[in-house]
Amino acid sequence: MVKINPDRLLSDLRTLRTFGTYKTGVHRPTYSDIDMQSRRWLVERMTDAGLTATIDGIGNVIGRSPAPGPKLLLGSHVETQPHGGWLDGAMGVIFAIEMARAVAEDPALQDCGVDAAAWADEEGHYMSFIGSRSFIGDVTEAEIDGVESKHDGTPLRDALASAGLAGLPRAVLEADRYLGFLEAHIEQGPTLESMAQKIGVVTSIVGTWQYEIIAEGIQNHAGTTAMSLRRDAGRALIKLAHAIDQHFPEIAAERSVWTVGGLRLEPGAPAIVPGLARMLFQFRDADPRQLARFAAAFDDLVAAVAADDPCSITAKQLSASTPSLMHPGFQDALSAAAEQHVPGLHQRMPSGAGHDAQILANVMPTGMMFIPSIGGISHHWSEDSDEADIVIGGQVLATAVGDILAKGRA
Amino acid sequence: MVKINPDRLLSDLRTLRTFGTYKTGVHRPTYSDIDMQSRRWLVERMTDAGLTATIDGIGNVIGRSPAPGPKLLLGSHVETQPHGGWLDGAMGVIFAIEMARAVAEDPALQDCGVDAAAWADEEGHYMSFIGSRSFIGDVTEAEIDGVESKHDGTPLRDALASAGLAGLPRAVLEADRYLGFLEAHIEQGPTLESMAQKIGVVTSIVGTWQYEIIAEGIQNHAGTTAMSLRRDAGRALIKLAHAIDQHFPEIAAERSVWTVGGLRLEPGAPAIVPGLARMLFQFRDADPRQLARFAAAFDDLVAAVAADDPCSITAKQLSASTPSLMHPGFQDALSAAAEQHVPGLHQRMPSGAGHDAQILANVMPTGMMFIPSIGGISHHWSEDSDEADIVIGGQVLATAVGDILAKGRA
Repeated sequence: MVKINPDRLLSDLRTLRTFGTYKTGVHRPTYSDIDMQSRRWLVERMTDAGLTATIDGIGNVIGRSPAPGPKLLLGSHVETQPHGGWLDGAMGVIFAIEMARAVAEDPALQDCGVDAAAWADEEGHYMSFIGSRSFIGDVTEAEIDGVESKHDGTPLRDALASAGLAGLPRAVLEADRYLGFLEAHIEQGPTLESMAQKIGVVTSIVGTWQYEIIAEGIQNHAGTTAMSLRRDAGRALIKLAHAIDQHFPEIAAERSVWTVGGLRLEPGAPAIVPGLARMLFQFRDADPRQLARFAAAFDDLVAAVAADDPCSITAKQLSASTPSLMHPGFQDALSAAAEQHVPGLHQRMPSGAGHDAQILANVMPTGMMFIPSIGGISHHWSEDSDEADIVIGGQVLATAVGDILAKGRA
Repeated sequence: MVKINPDRLLSDLRTLRTFGTYKTGVHRPTYSDIDMQSRRWLVERMTDAGLTATIDGIGNVIGRSPAPGPKLLLGSHVETQPHGGWLDGAMGVIFAIEMARAVAEDPALQDCGVDAAAWADEEGHYMSFIGSRSFIGDVTEAEIDGVESKHDGTPLRDALASAGLAGLPRAVLEADRYLGFLEAHIEQGPTLESMAQKIGVVTSIVGTWQYEIIAEGIQNHAGTTAMSLRRDAGRALIKLAHAIDQHFPEIAAERSVWTVGGLRLEPGAPAIVPGLARMLFQFRDADPRQLARFAAAFDDLVAAVAADDPCSITAKQLSASTPSLMHPGFQDALSAAAEQHVPGLHQRMPSGAGHDAQILANVMPTGMMFIPSIGGISHHWSEDSDEADIVIGGQVLATAVGDILAKGRA
């Protein structure tokens, strides 16, 4: 059985936490100085683990095993949400390095290997999943030319140049190199903790459909403009947001979620009727038919509010990912490993969050495993998990990795 | 009859527009360099008009007439809204200076005089009406110590020091100096234009009650947090805003207005359930009983939404001004002057916007006069009025000023 070294794993995780510490979390935006320092440190750790490691032209850190036999690719992302948690992404990257070490140390798997990856910008400071998408050949140079920072509008090209990545080749998947891809992650929700379970075996990653809705009215004085004459862009989107919250529960599936994450009235002053309002809206589900049902209902609600409001309302779909099914064989391997180490304390579950695994699932068998999040908190510096649960997760993953590699010889 | 010099009046107005030109409007925040330049220029213009002019310790520019007989105080404000219009405030200040000149030039009124004032910060970059409130003795040094910029938090004390005003005395109303106060202003609404009228004689200035509402929930991941477990601060305030828009029309008076001017969800990202939301809400009416009715309804709605929502919701009243009645004799003088110059093309109307006149009305007879706003647009750089309407307004005001001064001898 592949055995992890818990102290080595936790020590690496704690060191990675020092790159951009913010309170008990981490602030490490993609391509920032501290992010690039963490990537260069990962190259060192991967090299120490016996991998040939490089940073590619989009910022992916990839360490390749010299093993001649069956290989798995493991990884996650290393940048964080703004003032985010210390484990979101980071844990999956350190797990990947630990798996490479543990497999290399296993006398029974000397012909097998694990490649480790830290994909760039899963969190979308510039563009979500651009690192893993680049690796599967889904990103053109023209697309990179058009991307800019969501925070300050810095062109991605400039950020890559500042990070020292301009002109470097982008790594691309080598056909038939891998049995598949595995990613470990914190759950980012309360399900495992609330059921006192230790491992979640992901069945699918939900699809996320995202919209920006803009209402254009007329900015005017809030004291002198009669109610009947107003074209209040804020009121129009409040009406839409409220209509969504009224109607969506009636058509939702059990695990559907929908969120108005942003709503801004411009200029946003107390004595000015907002002339412009912007809303960010998304919904998620593991079932493509449910996503289509939501999309149709959303379009109907926008049309109904627009028909009845003096403002012009336009909704633009920003993204629409399809749900990704995890490989049944990898699910079985993860469940069996969990049953071995924490019998009865694991379950299969969909992932409500997006992950690089959904990108890799387009091109190879892919599996994903969760460990519990304390209080279900995520995308916040207070995100945390018990170290004991991290170690359990590492050992379960190692067992599954060993199982898949051994079977891969056949 | 007191006669204005239209070219002189328009020339001064156009010059004032050059201090902080932004597109066809003006950006002249209180105490900024450009604002202080405009105040020093006003001192020159007032001095040229035969007034003894100074800038006081809060930034008020006040020019005093040497006339021994009856005197009126006229004025408005000179700073603008951010990227605001060229006439909002500025016109009333230049009118005041032109009235001082025109009265001084009238052989029949040689014993009479007009003092001119540009009150500081009516627009509330630091604190609305602080200049006129200071003049009526309503502002303590301790209050000044506690005020800071609404834009960047600069303490008012620092702004006053940077503007060269630290340590200067604040001008205070001299008892019995004036027959009263008059302010001319653009309407900032569409009523006069839509009825093809030239002059609005203000009957009262509405009271404005203003609130900040904060909802506190729990920030979490928008994909992994089940709908039933969410404490979505944005959803809570969207519910409240929608409830207001449903209920307020049922209890509103004919000219009541209410506005959600600001609504912010934090952190405002598409994939994060907002943990905090802030809303700015205000309502206005000329009738104190209507204001009380709205306040009670608002409190009830906040309580109802809070009772039914997992977020904590708190509403803080930021301000509550009482409606100000304009002096009946001044209304009559303005109406008679309007009837003389533009027969039938004037009406009495409340002011939906706040003005320095509501502050001065606390201590002396006060009147206010509007000219039409093109398209009713206000608090925006595209605000404008026809020059012909400006000239008509100036002449109507001059006639009323002459009438009031002449009667003031008795």
